[in-house]
Amino acid sequence: MTLGASALARVRIVLVGSREPGNVGAAARAMKNMGLHALVIAGAPSLDLVAARRMAVHAADVLDDCRVVATLADAVAGCGLVVGTSGRDSVMRAGAAAPREAAPAIVATAARNDVALVFGPEDHGLSTEELARCQRVVAIPASDAYASLNLAQAVLLCAYELRLATLAGGVGEARVLAPHERLELLFAKLETALGAIGFLHGEGAPHVVRQLRRMLGRADLEEAEVDVLLGVARQIAWAARFIPPAGERA
Amino acid sequence: MTLGASALARVRIVLVGSREPGNVGAAARAMKNMGLHALVIAGAPSLDLVAARRMAVHAADVLDDCRVVATLADAVAGCGLVVGTSGRDSVMRAGAAAPREAAPAIVATAARNDVALVFGPEDHGLSTEELARCQRVVAIPASDAYASLNLAQAVLLCAYELRLATLAGGVGEARVLAPHERLELLFAKLETALGAIGFLHGEGAPHVVRQLRRMLGRADLEEAEVDVLLGVARQIAWAARFIPPAGERA
Repeated sequence: MTLGASALARVRIVLVGSREPGNVGAAARAMKNMGLHALVIAGAPSLDLVAARRMAVHAADVLDDCRVVATLADAVAGCGLVVGTSGRDSVMRAGAAAPREAAPAIVATAARNDVALVFGPEDHGLSTEELARCQRVVAIPASDAYASLNLAQAVLLCAYELRLATLAGGVGEARVLAPHERLELLFAKLETALGAIGFLHGEGAPHVVRQLRRMLGRADLEEAEVDVLLGVARQIAWAARFIPPAGERA
Repeated sequence: MTLGASALARVRIVLVGSREPGNVGAAARAMKNMGLHALVIAGAPSLDLVAARRMAVHAADVLDDCRVVATLADAVAGCGLVVGTSGRDSVMRAGAAAPREAAPAIVATAARNDVALVFGPEDHGLSTEELARCQRVVAIPASDAYASLNLAQAVLLCAYELRLATLAGGVGEARVLAPHERLELLFAKLETALGAIGFLHGEGAPHVVRQLRRMLGRADLEEAEVDVLLGVARQIAWAARFIPPAGERA
């Protein structure tokens, strides 16, 4: 099965907190070079899009059509798969895949789902909290001597791998996945419920939450499956109401 | 066999006629990101290297160590393999390989030979004559909608493919190839000799010369093999002396 260009049409590039218009313009050009068009700019209220347009050269149309939103959550709403990008040093890197490894599954998913590929600010990349919102993390296998790529360069490499994976054909039939905001609702409900039964406590709690997010994120959940897990969370929360205060337990 | 980083040490990036210092700096950064260090700047006498250094960020050492030369011939002297890069529209594109296809053989050759990867000016790329000097041509499989990559982006993609091919390991034992200037001598002698026997004539002659260059370029000739072909050229030239002027032939 050759997916053709249509799979790339459902991939959006999300730039979070970008500061340099030159980078955003160069990223737009790189996107168009690789057959991508959908750009979302998040959390960058003072970004100079006119200056960005100049660096885009013949890809000004990508910027003309881009969506500007306030938050990462807005940017990825409706996506069945959200993929974050990370430098080598990130705490999230342990579970990260190289773009070449990740690309076939991403384009296969994009055949039937909107997919977001998320890039952080130039200076420090996506935060741990932002990466925790992503179901997959990819990291470019750069040299230890200088592992930090320019933003537009990172966009180019990821888009290039998606393009080549698209040209190479897919990896089987893709399923329709739950939109990202349903997944976020599930994580919120689970966290509340698990907190209520005392599972999440102390300094390690955020780490455990991230682990849960990663595991369920990797599971490529369909909407009906999210509903099942929401039911589990509801049931846990219901049960928690019966736990007596610490002082009153046997 | 894993080639490790040593193969990349013998790959030099040659930028011909670059105009934008920002591109050169970004290319230096991309090189270091991918574990390359040897940069040669050719035919760019007015390039502002101080401005380039700013865009290199933490790869200023690549620019500090770069070699600045007058011509492409100077830049590729001593190389066993010279690989040119080309946009989609070039006349040379027909025989071009994608970077991913070409990379394993390039890094295998670089284990025992100096290898040059040559990039043309920002506006129009390498000329037909410059590409004719290259034994191999690679072209990035970009989108038809916008096939022209920024110079630094093209350097990044090629360096990335070389890096991944290096990490993946080589493709058998590499031979020691004839240095580029010996090959150029051979082509010059062949052209003279073939001209002398009337093989090269009329408007089609340059095209035939390019075809010969491409064929022999692809052959990865060793020095002893070049000597054999130089002997052939010498013999043809010797024979040509006996050809009577057109008016005196039977």
